[in-house]
Amino acid sequence: MVKVGIVGGTGYTGVELLRLLAQHPGVEIVTITSRGDAGTSVCSMFPSLRGRVDLEFEDPLASNLRSCDLVFFATPNGVAMQQAPELLDAGVRVIDLAADFRITDVAEWEKWYGMLHACPEWVASAVYGLPEVNRVAIREARLVANPGCYPTAVQLGFLPLVEAGLVDLDHLIADAKSGVSGAGRKAEVSSLFSEAADNFKAYGVPGHRHLPEIRQGLSRIAGVGVGLTFVPHLMPVIRGIHATLYSRIKEEADYQSLYELRYANEPFVDVLPAMSHPDTRSVRAANTCRIAIHRPQGGDTMVVLSVIDNLVKGAAGQAVQNMNIMFGLGETDGLWQLPVLP
Amino acid sequence: MVKVGIVGGTGYTGVELLRLLAQHPGVEIVTITSRGDAGTSVCSMFPSLRGRVDLEFEDPLASNLRSCDLVFFATPNGVAMQQAPELLDAGVRVIDLAADFRITDVAEWEKWYGMLHACPEWVASAVYGLPEVNRVAIREARLVANPGCYPTAVQLGFLPLVEAGLVDLDHLIADAKSGVSGAGRKAEVSSLFSEAADNFKAYGVPGHRHLPEIRQGLSRIAGVGVGLTFVPHLMPVIRGIHATLYSRIKEEADYQSLYELRYANEPFVDVLPAMSHPDTRSVRAANTCRIAIHRPQGGDTMVVLSVIDNLVKGAAGQAVQNMNIMFGLGETDGLWQLPVLP
Amino acid sequence: MVKVGIVGGTGYTGVELLRLLAQHPGVEIVTITSRGDAGTSVCSMFPSLRGRVDLEFEDPLASNLRSCDLVFFATPNGVAMQQAPELLDAGVRVIDLAADFRITDVAEWEKWYGMLHACPEWVASAVYGLPEVNRVAIREARLVANPGCYPTAVQLGFLPLVEAGLVDLDHLIADAKSGVSGAGRKAEVSSLFSEAADNFKAYGVPGHRHLPEIRQGLSRIAGVGVGLTFVPHLMPVIRGIHATLYSRIKEEADYQSLYELRYANEPFVDVLPAMSHPDTRSVRAANTCRIAIHRPQGGDTMVVLSVIDNLVKGAAGQAVQNMNIMFGLGETDGLWQLPVLP
Amino acid sequence: MVKVGIVGGTGYTGVELLRLLAQHPGVEIVTITSRGDAGTSVCSMFPSLRGRVDLEFEDPLASNLRSCDLVFFATPNGVAMQQAPELLDAGVRVIDLAADFRITDVAEWEKWYGMLHACPEWVASAVYGLPEVNRVAIREARLVANPGCYPTAVQLGFLPLVEAGLVDLDHLIADAKSGVSGAGRKAEVSSLFSEAADNFKAYGVPGHRHLPEIRQGLSRIAGVGVGLTFVPHLMPVIRGIHATLYSRIKEEADYQSLYELRYANEPFVDVLPAMSHPDTRSVRAANTCRIAIHRPQGGDTMVVLSVIDNLVKGAAGQAVQNMNIMFGLGETDGLWQLPVLP
Repeated sequence: MVKVGIVGGTGYTGVELLRLLAQHPGVEIVTITSRGDAGTSVCSMFPSLRGRVDLEFEDPLASNLRSCDLVFFATPNGVAMQQAPELLDAGVRVIDLAADFRITDVAEWEKWYGMLHACPEWVASAVYGLPEVNRVAIREARLVANPGCYPTAVQLGFLPLVEAGLVDLDHLIADAKSGVSGAGRKAEVSSLFSEAADNFKAYGVPGHRHLPEIRQGLSRIAGVGVGLTFVPHLMPVIRGIHATLYSRIKEEADYQSLYELRYANEPFVDVLPAMSHPDTRSVRAANTCRIAIHRPQGGDTMVVLSVIDNLVKGAAGQAVQNMNIMFGLGETDGLWQLPVLP
Repeated sequence: MVKVGIVGGTGYTGVELLRLLAQHPGVEIVTITSRGDAGTSVCSMFPSLRGRVDLEFEDPLASNLRSCDLVFFATPNGVAMQQAPELLDAGVRVIDLAADFRITDVAEWEKWYGMLHACPEWVASAVYGLPEVNRVAIREARLVANPGCYPTAVQLGFLPLVEAGLVDLDHLIADAKSGVSGAGRKAEVSSLFSEAADNFKAYGVPGHRHLPEIRQGLSRIAGVGVGLTFVPHLMPVIRGIHATLYSRIKEEADYQSLYELRYANEPFVDVLPAMSHPDTRSVRAANTCRIAIHRPQGGDTMVVLSVIDNLVKGAAGQAVQNMNIMFGLGETDGLWQLPVLP
Repeated sequence: MVKVGIVGGTGYTGVELLRLLAQHPGVEIVTITSRGDAGTSVCSMFPSLRGRVDLEFEDPLASNLRSCDLVFFATPNGVAMQQAPELLDAGVRVIDLAADFRITDVAEWEKWYGMLHACPEWVASAVYGLPEVNRVAIREARLVANPGCYPTAVQLGFLPLVEAGLVDLDHLIADAKSGVSGAGRKAEVSSLFSEAADNFKAYGVPGHRHLPEIRQGLSRIAGVGVGLTFVPHLMPVIRGIHATLYSRIKEEADYQSLYELRYANEPFVDVLPAMSHPDTRSVRAANTCRIAIHRPQGGDTMVVLSVIDNLVKGAAGQAVQNMNIMFGLGETDGLWQLPVLP
Repeated sequence: MVKVGIVGGTGYTGVELLRLLAQHPGVEIVTITSRGDAGTSVCSMFPSLRGRVDLEFEDPLASNLRSCDLVFFATPNGVAMQQAPELLDAGVRVIDLAADFRITDVAEWEKWYGMLHACPEWVASAVYGLPEVNRVAIREARLVANPGCYPTAVQLGFLPLVEAGLVDLDHLIADAKSGVSGAGRKAEVSSLFSEAADNFKAYGVPGHRHLPEIRQGLSRIAGVGVGLTFVPHLMPVIRGIHATLYSRIKEEADYQSLYELRYANEPFVDVLPAMSHPDTRSVRAANTCRIAIHRPQGGDTMVVLSVIDNLVKGAAGQAVQNMNIMFGLGETDGLWQLPVLP
C-alpha cells in the first residue's frame, strides 16, 4: 500500500482526491492537513464521505507528512514551493496540484503569478504530469507538476495536430469553457450562485495564467514556439471543461485516423467517431478526456472538441493517474468509475 | 456470475442500471432490450458508457431474456405486468422498477394508474422491495416490486416513528421535492430545461400515484391505516429527493437514539448527528439515504429530513441492492461508489 | 417627483431597487451610498443599468441623504437602527429593508439577531410594511419596516385562514423554499454556485430569524398567539420563494371564495383557480404574490401554495409599493412590469 | 394604436412577444392564433400574463388577422411562407420571426431547410430586419424577415470590422453559445432539463442553418463573399447568446473607437469600455446587445465578445423594434425595460 498524505484538503481538489483515494485499492491515506480546520473531522465538512473516510484535518506542522511515500499538495498557488522542498529532501515524493512547478521559465512564472519563486532549483527537476506526453519521465519523478485543467483539455485536443505539424502553429485558437468549480471553494462574489447561474461570460481575455502553461506545453510538443489565442469562459456547470480548438490546415491528412492512432493505447483519452459532439457530462466524475474532430464545410479550418471533468482529469484524477505511474501501480487503478449521467 | 437482462434500457433508470451493473463484480449483463431502438449500440445513445458496455439494444422478442437468472424491467408502468409473467413462469426472477406490482389492492392500483391490471394473480406474490423492511422476504422472492422514489425517501424517514407508534398516525405530512430526472427521459414540455430551470413548483397536490404506495407501506409498518398528506414538488436539480416530514408527537422519547438504533445495521441508511441538515448532493450517485431528526423550539411537531438520489436508492441502486439480497451476494456489492460532491 | 436616497446599494436588494426606481415615473434618485465602494460608478458594478442610471456610489457621510423625501436602507441588519434616527429626526421618511424595526418586542429581536438594539424608541412607532394588512398605517408612517421575504410569502398565504379563524392556530406549518439570492450578495461558501447548484437542503430548522416575525404577524392578525413550525430550504433558483402551508381545518367553509374575496382588491395578490399550482417563475421579476388553495383528498388538512419573487414582493418591490402608498402615488406605479417567463 | 396579430403564440417567441406587446403603449393586440390550442385562454398556458392579457388562442382560419395592421409569425419554419402571402396581398404588413424569408438565394434556403419554398416571389421583396444595417428599408417594408438569434449576435459583433475591411474576411470564426430557449418550446429529449442542465456541448459543427444567414449578412456588409467557421454550443442557461468572434487583423486601427463610433447612435447596441467582458445576464430580458473588443497580448488576432438575449434582441424584441420602425413609432417604445439581474 502506498502511504499518501494530502496537504490542504478543504478545497474541491482536496475532497475529490479523497473521493478517489478512498476507493483506491492500493493506497492508504495517512494524513490530511489544513491549517485553518485542524481538529475538524473530514466528514463534518464533507458529509458525502461519511462512513468511508475516518480522518481529522491535522495541523501541517504536527502531522506525519514525512512518513508518507507521497504527498499531494492541493493548496493555493505558492504553498507547495514553500513546503514541498523539505519533504522532497526527506525522500518523500510530491505531486503539486497547483501551479508552482508547471512553468520552467521562472521569470515567466513570477510575472504571471505575481510572486517570487521560493525554490527555483526544484522547478528544473519537476516533471510536467501529463501522462500522454511524459509517461516515462513521470515514472521516475520525485516531483510532479500536475497540469492545470484548461491546459489538460487544450493540450490533449491539439496534441496530434501539433505533433504532426499539420496546422499553422502561429495562430492556434482555444475557446475554452469551464465549470465554476474550477475557481475553487473560495468565498468570492463572482462564484456565487446568484452571479454564475443562468449566466455565461468570458474572462481573462487579455491574459490568463494558463496561457503560458499551454504555450509551453504545445511548444515542447511542436519543437518550436507556438502562437496561441486563449479565451476562457465561465459556464453555469459545476464540473466540466469544453475546449473548442481552431487551427488552419497546412496539409491534407486523415485527421480522424491521426487522432485514433495517437490515442489508441491511452486508457483515458477517447476519440469519438467522426461527426460527434462530446458533452461535458459524458465525462462527469470520470478521468476521461473525450475528443471529436471536425472540418466544417470541408474548409481549411480544423475544429477539435475536447472535454474533461476539471476536478478529475483536470486535477485530482490526473494526480492519481500520475501516482499510479510513479509507484508502478496499474495506471487505471482507482480511476475506473463510470461517468455519472444524467 | 448472475446473468441479468434489462427490459427497456433507454430511460434514466435503464442507463443508471447499466452504470451500476457494469461496475458490479458478480454480474454479467446478458441482454438489454428496447423495442424502438433495437440494433442501436448502447454507447451511441449513452457515450458515458463507451469502452465499458459493449451491447446493442435488442428487440425484446428476439432476445434471450429467458436464459437470464434475473430480469430488470425499467419500463413505463403497465409493461412488466404484460411481459413478466411468462418469464416468471419460465423460472426467471424479476425486479420491476415500475409500479405494476407495488399496490396490493388491485382495484386501488387500477384507479390510480388508469388501466386494468393484466396479472392480478402475481400482485399477491410480489414482494415490496424495501430491504430495510422486507429483507427476509426479498431473499426468496421470485418477483420484487421495486419501490418508487418518493415512497423510499418518505417511508425510510417515517419508519422508526411509525414502528414505535410515537406520533399521531392520522395526520402525517410529507412535503417532498424531486429532481427532474424523476419524470424520466420522456420528451415532455414540463420537463424542458427552459420550463424547469430556475423554477420551483408543487404538482399533483390533489393526488399523486405515490400517495397510495406510501400509505400502504406506512400502514403495514404501523399495523393500522395511516392518514397522510403528500405534496410533491419539482425542483431544478437533476438527481435527488428531499423529503421534509412533519408529525405530531404523542409521547416523549429519545428520538435521535430511536433512529440511530433502528438503522444501526443498515448499510445504506445514515442517521446524521442531531441538528444536521442533509443536502441532496451528499448522496448524489450513491445508494445512501441520509436522515436528520429535529424538534423545532422543543414543540410537539417532529421534523424529519430524508434525502436520497432518486435514480439510485430511489430506483436502480435499490434494484441492485434487491438483486444482491435475492442472489446471496454481498448486499453492498457494486454499490460502494462514493457520492459525487461537488 | 419624490426625491429618494438609497443607503447600501451594492447588494441584491440595492440593485433591484435601482432597477425598479429607474423605471418609476414619479421618482428621482438623488443619491446612493456605499461606504466601501464610494467613487465607483453604479454601472461599472451593475452593467445591466448602463445608459439608465448615471450615479456613483457616495460615502454616506458626504452624501445629501438629508435632502431626500425618503431614504431606503438596503443594508445588513443593524445598520438602519444606527443611521436612520438622525434622518428621521430631520424629517426624512425611511423604509428599512432589513430587520431592524420588524419585531416589536425588542428583547425578542435582540435574542434572534444577537445584538443590542440601538434605538428601541423608534421600534414602537415603526409600521410593518405589509400593505395587504397595514395599508392605512403605512400611508402616514414616518418609518416603515419592510417585511422579510419568507414572512411576506407565508403571511399572505395564511392570512385569510387566520383572519377567519377557520384552522387550528396552534399548529401551523410553513415549509418554505427560497432562491439563493435571498442570502444576499455576500461572499460565503454556502452560497457558491458549486455548493448550491444541483442541490437542495433545509437549513435553520432549529430556529430561523423569520420565525418570530411570521409568528408576530400572524398572531396580530389572529388576535391570539399562534403556534408555527417553520422550515426554510435553499433551492437552486436565483429568485423565488415557494411556501407550502399546512393547517388543520376546524370548520367547513368555501375556502376558494374566502381567498378570492379577501384579495379581490389587492393589485399584487393573485388567487389562482382551484386545483392550480403556481410556479415561482410566474412571478419572476414582478411584484406579484400568486396563491393556490388545496384540500387534498377532501381531508381535514388545508394546503396553501404561495409564491413571490424574494427580491421584488419579498424586498425591493414591496418597498416601492410602500413608498407609493406613503407618498400618495398610484400603488402600482413603477411596478407594472410583467414577469419574465421563461 | 397599431393593431397587431400573432400567429403561433404558444412558443417562447410567442409568449415573449406577448410580454413586450402587452406593455407597449402604441399597440393593440387584436388576435393571437394557435391551431392546436384554439379556445384556450392565453393565461391558462402562461400564468405570468394573468391580469394583463385577456385573450384566447383563436383558430387561424376563424380569426380576423386580415383586419390587422401587422401580423407577427411566431411559427415554425415553413408556416409563414404558406400563410403570409394572402395577408400581404390584403395589405397587411408581416414580420416573420422564423427563417422563411431570411435567405435570398432560394435554392440555398431549400437545401438548408429541407423543403421547397412556397412563395419564392416574396423572398426578393422581403427586408432583412436588422435595424443597425437596414433601418431605412425596414421603414417601408411590407414583409420583414426577422433575423435569427445567432445571426444577430454574430453580425452585430463583426459589423464594424467587416464594414471597415480591417480583417481577413476569408477566415472569420464565430464560437457561439446559446441558452436552451433557443431550441423553442418543443418537447424534445435533447432540450430536457436532465439532458441540458449541468452540461455543455457543441452541436451542428458540420453545418447549422444559421451559417448561410450569417454568411449572407456579412458578405453584403463586406461587399464580397466572406469565409466563416461557425460553431454553435448549447449552454445550461435559459436565455442568452454569447458569441466569441475571432478574426485576423490585416491593418492597424483604433478598434475601440471604431466600434464606439459605429454604434454611437444605436439605442440597442452598447459598446463596453476596453478590457470588458459582458455577461449574458447583463442583457437578460432586454433588447440590448453588449459588445467588448479585445486584442490579446497585442497579437494579430481580434477577439470580439457579443451578448444578447436570444428571445429579445434575438427574436421578439427585435421584431418589436422592427414594428416600431415600420409604423413610425419611437424605436425604443415598449422596449425600455431594464435587464433583470441577478
